[in-house]
Amino acid sequence: MSVIYFLDLIGTLVFAISGTLSAANKKLDLFGAYFTGFITAIGGGTLRDVILGNFPVAWISDLNYIVIISLGVILTFLFKNTIMTLKRTLFLFDTIGIGVFTLIGIEKSLSLDIHPFLAIIMGLFSAVMGGVIRDTLCNDIPLIFRKEIYATACLAGGVLFIILNSLEINSALNQFLTISCIILFRLLCIRFRISLPVLKY
Amino acid sequence: MSVIYFLDLIGTLVFAISGTLSAANKKLDLFGAYFTGFITAIGGGTLRDVILGNFPVAWISDLNYIVIISLGVILTFLFKNTIMTLKRTLFLFDTIGIGVFTLIGIEKSLSLDIHPFLAIIMGLFSAVMGGVIRDTLCNDIPLIFRKEIYATACLAGGVLFIILNSLEINSALNQFLTISCIILFRLLCIRFRISLPVLKY
Amino acid sequence: MSVIYFLDLIGTLVFAISGTLSAANKKLDLFGAYFTGFITAIGGGTLRDVILGNFPVAWISDLNYIVIISLGVILTFLFKNTIMTLKRTLFLFDTIGIGVFTLIGIEKSLSLDIHPFLAIIMGLFSAVMGGVIRDTLCNDIPLIFRKEIYATACLAGGVLFIILNSLEINSALNQFLTISCIILFRLLCIRFRISLPVLKY
Repeated sequence: MSVIYFLDLIGTLVFAISGTLSAANKKLDLFGAYFTGFITAIGGGTLRDVILGNFPVAWISDLNYIVIISLGVILTFLFKNTIMTLKRTLFLFDTIGIGVFTLIGIEKSLSLDIHPFLAIIMGLFSAVMGGVIRDTLCNDIPLIFRKEIYATACLAGGVLFIILNSLEINSALNQFLTISCIILFRLLCIRFRISLPVLKY
Repeated sequence: MSVIYFLDLIGTLVFAISGTLSAANKKLDLFGAYFTGFITAIGGGTLRDVILGNFPVAWISDLNYIVIISLGVILTFLFKNTIMTLKRTLFLFDTIGIGVFTLIGIEKSLSLDIHPFLAIIMGLFSAVMGGVIRDTLCNDIPLIFRKEIYATACLAGGVLFIILNSLEINSALNQFLTISCIILFRLLCIRFRISLPVLKY
Repeated sequence: MSVIYFLDLIGTLVFAISGTLSAANKKLDLFGAYFTGFITAIGGGTLRDVILGNFPVAWISDLNYIVIISLGVILTFLFKNTIMTLKRTLFLFDTIGIGVFTLIGIEKSLSLDIHPFLAIIMGLFSAVMGGVIRDTLCNDIPLIFRKEIYATACLAGGVLFIILNSLEINSALNQFLTISCIILFRLLCIRFRISLPVLKY
């Protein structure tokens, strides 16, 4: 099992947990929680694959995703109080997940001969659309539209990947640097309370 | 015309009516009502076909769906008061529709060599996603996330179908038993007020 | 560059601006505004291409769309006050955009051998779904479900196109008449305050 695949599964697990917690916040029942966790975890990758016409979508061809998601939902139901105290750890894994999802989205797009600029957008979609769908289903304005430089971190990592890729740097090193860039970018923005400007009337 | 196809059209009609009634509840105009009825009726099957990469999607290759949906919307507009008094009948047909949609989703998935476990999820998607999109468009948290063991009935029926299918039981009998299981499950849950646990903080 | 393609880009620009203004209204940050502008501009065409199984979707195979959208978002951020005073001009271009999007949707569908009746629906989807997704993301009931005979204008233009097409009229003339019909229909409805009936309980 490659490191990227392993991190992908970790990211999927954390996204499923975050979806389940969102659902719990809205007093959804077990099914609603499962469904929300599921959509949060696979939404981004599914939308990417559908837009690219890349069938079957990832979680259809690999059962591990469903197993991991089910695990995440069940763990959240059983140990919700413990999980709530792990917010810092979850946040860290969430950030890793975003980095890995962005990377996977870009690499898949490039392998389909998509223009690098669009590949970055597809990387972003992979990372953020699960959360956007989660918030829309739960009747909130997507969190990502209002808080944190979450998406900007993905874009920065994406640009770095494309530049290093065009320099024909070793691919494993590029993967490592891209994910590190996204994680660092996000952590620094939160540490120093940097945020994007808001458009005012 | 096979019985399943006939029941599929009935289910589509009832879903279109339920979508139109939802829209009326939100004071949408004729177009909004038509659109909501339309999405409710075809949303689940469309999402299933798109995720499976199974093109063209069902209602593009068979005009009958559009005709039936138009009929449902127009009937609701003309005879809304009569339809409101038929809530029990509508509910029964809605339950039948859910059963049939689940069955069709599973059979289509299996015919595309999808893993049985994912086929059950696709059956569920076929049955419930139309309603989820309807509620999201009408700015509600999807009903299915909060009330009734609607989705669980689909899952129960799906599991039954896969088990009977692996036992190589006669396919028409399996279809009949699956739909019956979903209908019975839902009616019993409502009759005895059984509901799923809610995750609380 | 054909006139239709030019109008398509103008329509895309105006849709991106309208999406960005919506986002500003909800106090979204720069990313949220960009994302909303982007989805508003490409949502309709993307959904049409995905439903038709017509891959790659339009904006993946032509970078101009992304460039135009980025331009629209940046212009809105820089010159928001000027743009707000141009509401009449924007409205006019928005109406032209709707006409062109409808036309392109119908022509694409017909070129894929879709039934003319469904082609009209696909034309409508191309024109209105971007706005529907925008409103859903911003947590509003889609504007199109409540106000103006926006969608009806698209349908009227679509029916006209199909009739003239079946009469084998010159295709450029048909394009011109279809777009004109949609624009005129919408302007007249607004001028004379014509609106669709609402379904009441």
